[in-house]
Amino acid sequence: MSPPTLETVERALGAKLLHTRYAYSERDAVLYALGVGAPAHWLAPRELKFVHELRADFQVLPTFAVIFAKELHDLVLSGDIAGIKYNPMLLVHGEQQLKLAKSLPPAAVVDSTVRVAEIYDKGSGLLMVLDVISCDESGGLLAQARTSMFLRGLGGFGGERGPSSRIDLPDRPPDAVVEEKTNTRQALLYRLAGDANPLHVDPQMAAIGNFDRPILHGLCTLGFSARAVLKRFCDNDAQKLAGIRARFAHHVYPGETLRTEIWRTGAGDVHFQTKVKERDAVVLSQASAQLRP
Amino acid sequence: MSPPTLETVERALGAKLLHTRYAYSERDAVLYALGVGAPAHWLAPRELKFVHELRADFQVLPTFAVIFAKELHDLVLSGDIAGIKYNPMLLVHGEQQLKLAKSLPPAAVVDSTVRVAEIYDKGSGLLMVLDVISCDESGGLLAQARTSMFLRGLGGFGGERGPSSRIDLPDRPPDAVVEEKTNTRQALLYRLAGDANPLHVDPQMAAIGNFDRPILHGLCTLGFSARAVLKRFCDNDAQKLAGIRARFAHHVYPGETLRTEIWRTGAGDVHFQTKVKERDAVVLSQASAQLRP
Repeated sequence: MSPPTLETVERALGAKLLHTRYAYSERDAVLYALGVGAPAHWLAPRELKFVHELRADFQVLPTFAVIFAKELHDLVLSGDIAGIKYNPMLLVHGEQQLKLAKSLPPAAVVDSTVRVAEIYDKGSGLLMVLDVISCDESGGLLAQARTSMFLRGLGGFGGERGPSSRIDLPDRPPDAVVEEKTNTRQALLYRLAGDANPLHVDPQMAAIGNFDRPILHGLCTLGFSARAVLKRFCDNDAQKLAGIRARFAHHVYPGETLRTEIWRTGAGDVHFQTKVKERDAVVLSQASAQLRP
Repeated sequence: MSPPTLETVERALGAKLLHTRYAYSERDAVLYALGVGAPAHWLAPRELKFVHELRADFQVLPTFAVIFAKELHDLVLSGDIAGIKYNPMLLVHGEQQLKLAKSLPPAAVVDSTVRVAEIYDKGSGLLMVLDVISCDESGGLLAQARTSMFLRGLGGFGGERGPSSRIDLPDRPPDAVVEEKTNTRQALLYRLAGDANPLHVDPQMAAIGNFDRPILHGLCTLGFSARAVLKRFCDNDAQKLAGIRARFAHHVYPGETLRTEIWRTGAGDVHFQTKVKERDAVVLSQASAQLRP
């Protein structure tokens, strides 16, 4: 497939792609929490509030908000976003950002609007940035998610290169390290709450994507890392996480151990990176989280 | 609480307790399958058909039918069934039977009728047998489930003692043995598909029930055992399981290893028992399954 014309790109910029409605229950939020590994220890009470909806202190994990616009998956897999055509197999979920306006209610009807926020020409590919703005039924802002997708082979259309920002990790050992082994069935579980893409469950589809075996969802890894930040810097209080972002640097296989290394970089700010311990591979990089007091 | 009068028992016999409707999707069936431990190995394709609804060979596990009448849990926990009052903490789920009229559809709207089938006076307690008849929307029979509950301390009301049947296991080594380690979070997962009773998730509730820690659902163990029978005697074809029954002899803690020992006792019949390997305790006894060719 060839790069889009500059006119196509300019028409696509700002385009409203979807308006979605997602009604979730406590059960959906619990399923998500189990999908991202909560509770770390089944007998420790600290994370039971994320997986047991009958508790008085029940809370929804903040990163649950990244799955609000479910129909976005189908659009992305269609290979045509606002007239920009691509081969979905050459698409890479590059980065994810999430800002929480407030803590997520136990159950809600969420209306989300998906727009094309930015399109950049990175030479080797096209970088498309989508914004998902999610509100509750009364129109109150819940969360803003920003998804960056890299479309390999579609660069060179004459567009702007865009900003390059870089998080440098502090030159000292991390202030906190959380290690958790994922379950071999983690992707099978995560997909029920999140993204049902067969790449994460079907060995044949994984092979088409050039993977030995099905890989874990990048957003599942992000959920594990957010739990690590919540545990070590937020006293497991979901309200204290205001935002999180990360770059998907490498894939994770279900069953591998995630090691999240976290540095406090300010009163309301941590930087982190997440590695697969068994392979010492960085899987989330350029990663930070914003905390509320 | 004192035993019911014979009049109360006679009025209760045959009483229609509930008419329930449960609409399930493929996702609910997959969640149930994960809840009872499928797939045994995430890279083995044999059980992927139970957890990946996009596959052409997708099947619903037959024992999914035991959870069709969801509202039955609330009724049982209310401590009053057709005028027979009891302390729910002294109730023991004694036995479960299930007959499948046909293989379960990938998704369905299921109408179930719950009736009091039998009430027996066992001396030390009252045995109440409930029948759940489940049909699809067109009225076609899907499954019949029979639940026996033992109400401790409520015997001696002058009722019939009822039949006593006994399955004797063959005096030879089992023809098949399947061992599977449950996950420490198995009950947290099973409860999303099945029974949300906090006994299985909340350490405090477990303590009230005199357990060290939350226990696995008996019906979850039954699901593991049914998968063992399907694997070794039905070539993992859900259509071939016509029925299954078992007595809940002992509790299981999440994380323990279930060892299902199976004997072929006829062309269409197997007997089995399920043990917790770590404690060599029989947890399902008086158990059999009926197979279709």
